[in-house]
Amino acid sequence: MVETGLTHSDLELTIDGRVLRFPAVWLRDNCPCPDCVAPGTTQKINDITDMPNGVAITHAARADDSVTVTFAPDQHQATFARSWLAAHAPRDGSGADNSKTAGVDADDRAEDAKALWLAADLAPETSRFPGADWQRYLGEPAERIRALEAVLRLGFVLLRGVPAEPGTVLEVAASFGFVRETNYGRLFDIRVEPAPGNLAYTSRAIRPHTDNPYRDPVPTVQLLHCLRAAGQGGETGLVDGFAAAAALRASDPASFGTMAGTPASFGYVDKETVLRACQPLIELSPRGRVRGVRFNNRSMGPLRGSYAGISAFYAAYRRWAELLAEPGRQLNLRLAPGDCLVFDNTRVLHARTAFSMSAGSPGRHLQGCYADLDGLASTLAILKRGEESS
Amino acid sequence: MVETGLTHSDLELTIDGRVLRFPAVWLRDNCPCPDCVAPGTTQKINDITDMPNGVAITHAARADDSVTVTFAPDQHQATFARSWLAAHAPRDGSGADNSKTAGVDADDRAEDAKALWLAADLAPETSRFPGADWQRYLGEPAERIRALEAVLRLGFVLLRGVPAEPGTVLEVAASFGFVRETNYGRLFDIRVEPAPGNLAYTSRAIRPHTDNPYRDPVPTVQLLHCLRAAGQGGETGLVDGFAAAAALRASDPASFGTMAGTPASFGYVDKETVLRACQPLIELSPRGRVRGVRFNNRSMGPLRGSYAGISAFYAAYRRWAELLAEPGRQLNLRLAPGDCLVFDNTRVLHARTAFSMSAGSPGRHLQGCYADLDGLASTLAILKRGEESS
Repeated sequence: MVETGLTHSDLELTIDGRVLRFPAVWLRDNCPCPDCVAPGTTQKINDITDMPNGVAITHAARADDSVTVTFAPDQHQATFARSWLAAHAPRDGSGADNSKTAGVDADDRAEDAKALWLAADLAPETSRFPGADWQRYLGEPAERIRALEAVLRLGFVLLRGVPAEPGTVLEVAASFGFVRETNYGRLFDIRVEPAPGNLAYTSRAIRPHTDNPYRDPVPTVQLLHCLRAAGQGGETGLVDGFAAAAALRASDPASFGTMAGTPASFGYVDKETVLRACQPLIELSPRGRVRGVRFNNRSMGPLRGSYAGISAFYAAYRRWAELLAEPGRQLNLRLAPGDCLVFDNTRVLHARTAFSMSAGSPGRHLQGCYADLDGLASTLAILKRGEESS
Repeated sequence: MVETGLTHSDLELTIDGRVLRFPAVWLRDNCPCPDCVAPGTTQKINDITDMPNGVAITHAARADDSVTVTFAPDQHQATFARSWLAAHAPRDGSGADNSKTAGVDADDRAEDAKALWLAADLAPETSRFPGADWQRYLGEPAERIRALEAVLRLGFVLLRGVPAEPGTVLEVAASFGFVRETNYGRLFDIRVEPAPGNLAYTSRAIRPHTDNPYRDPVPTVQLLHCLRAAGQGGETGLVDGFAAAAALRASDPASFGTMAGTPASFGYVDKETVLRACQPLIELSPRGRVRGVRFNNRSMGPLRGSYAGISAFYAAYRRWAELLAEPGRQLNLRLAPGDCLVFDNTRVLHARTAFSMSAGSPGRHLQGCYADLDGLASTLAILKRGEESS
């Protein structure tokens, strides 16, 4: 049952007992007619300045499942499905001032779209642990959907049974998106090197960190594919940085504010590369929601600023580091040959324990590459579309 | 002349008459000794939690060009070059509360690192226009430095004389960085197509916009290489979005605040791709400085929120769009075959006028690709290092 009401500047509809009120300019900008949306695409043809200034509504005509609106000053007509209007209606019918909420609920990258976890929530021996078999992932869309959804919701998935052949990590990346090539190449080998330019290429322990904070844009997905495990040690740890950030905000809002409000400078230098980026350790959306963490003391440069600002930063930074290091946060895994970890590098910190190098053994060898979340999310959406229509 | 003073928590130095005061924890975190920085790299070995809690200074010994500091509780010693201390000192010696300024001056991506412009500032027939000859760019490091600096400082450079052969745009990208592959491929053809999935592939005019706002991370560099010009029309326009944002902030701070504070949803859908990103039209650093613009009504989805929030957004959005469309902002170019435009897609909007399709003529044909600013900045830094040492 639809009732239409009308003022000069908006449209009021009652759909299933809800009173919905739509601004005229919003309706006009979302007109789905072929003069407004390019046929065969989802693209609007008109820019906001192509719309007459002072758009108003002069007439609204109701049909069973649609409403046709006529706009002043140019008599343009737009027909909207009732279901579309109900689904996209402004959140209040009253027009009460609630302007802080525009755009609030659509950010798939922010904490509200995620399931936050502690290590115990995802213990590897339980069904809650996000794992998938590579052959099933390749052959069964439902399995691939579960795996890719885990990356978006939990921040990672472990694919098992990926052939432990060099270069296969690129096939894994191609299964959901596009490789982000960097100065490290399309893929990189992580093993002990005689003259390492990076701590990754030693047998040292590396505490939880995100990769490449000195890059902007940072690679949003990282893959680590195990070709050979270490004899002893070399275990992988994962920490949910969004869960930790939420905990810091709850327990120490001042330190959270300092981490979110202070740009830190990260750098990487070798013979062929000089990278530097300046971003806060906790990145917030315009609505103040967590949408990224960067954590890597290795590559953090000397903080600039005032004496008081630097002192306040270090106090907060230590609190943040201690919270991230709480034992209950780190999920520990032992990657076996054929395991490939795919994780959200804007959210999940990764670590490894030190490992031994036995004389004569070929030693631990992983291959890694970077990719991006937008391509992964697109692949997931297309797979879901296929499952829905099949 | 160096004088050292000392409290339990900091070091005070007088260098050339300036009183400099350094927090103990900052000094300890920046210790350059081989136990703290991995030899052969710029990487710190220790995490912030590896440092003892309550770091203090027990002794400072001065030499001609260095200072050696001894820390409590573990008696670790760090030697700093006097010149390094002078260059990296906290901005105030007084310890006055100035905490808002930590990290403020290091963000190369924000407006303060840019030279903002109006069209008249960079007229194509003048020497102020950032152009470079491809052969000189390839052969002369100084020319390549000038060209890449123009992309970082002004937001674009026009390379002329790039062979008008398909695929060459990838060589241009490889000359400074790495291609960002997307659903459009490593490169894409921009020409009129019979069933276009994107307005780019028609002969329509396209108003100033940034590309791919529905991608996150957005590609930060775009290349457009002209293989064939249109018979008539098809001119390219460029607008400095950072200059426009600064003008909006000055003339209408409330609208600026709405553009920076409202996440908008951008989308792109075709048979193989579903992309969506949620970001504000003007992106600010934690310090409130402009560091990105997104502007593309074509791909903006229905804004969600309250009635009042949506209405306020549209009023501000129109002001922003009108300001971007001011005639003095748009620099107009006619790309000739062999011209390749390289621009910062987080800052510079691009546009084209409509063009004619003459019967029998092959028509306008550009090839484009995406890349990223971090790789470009790295290439520039390495070239500068080479010029300094030669």
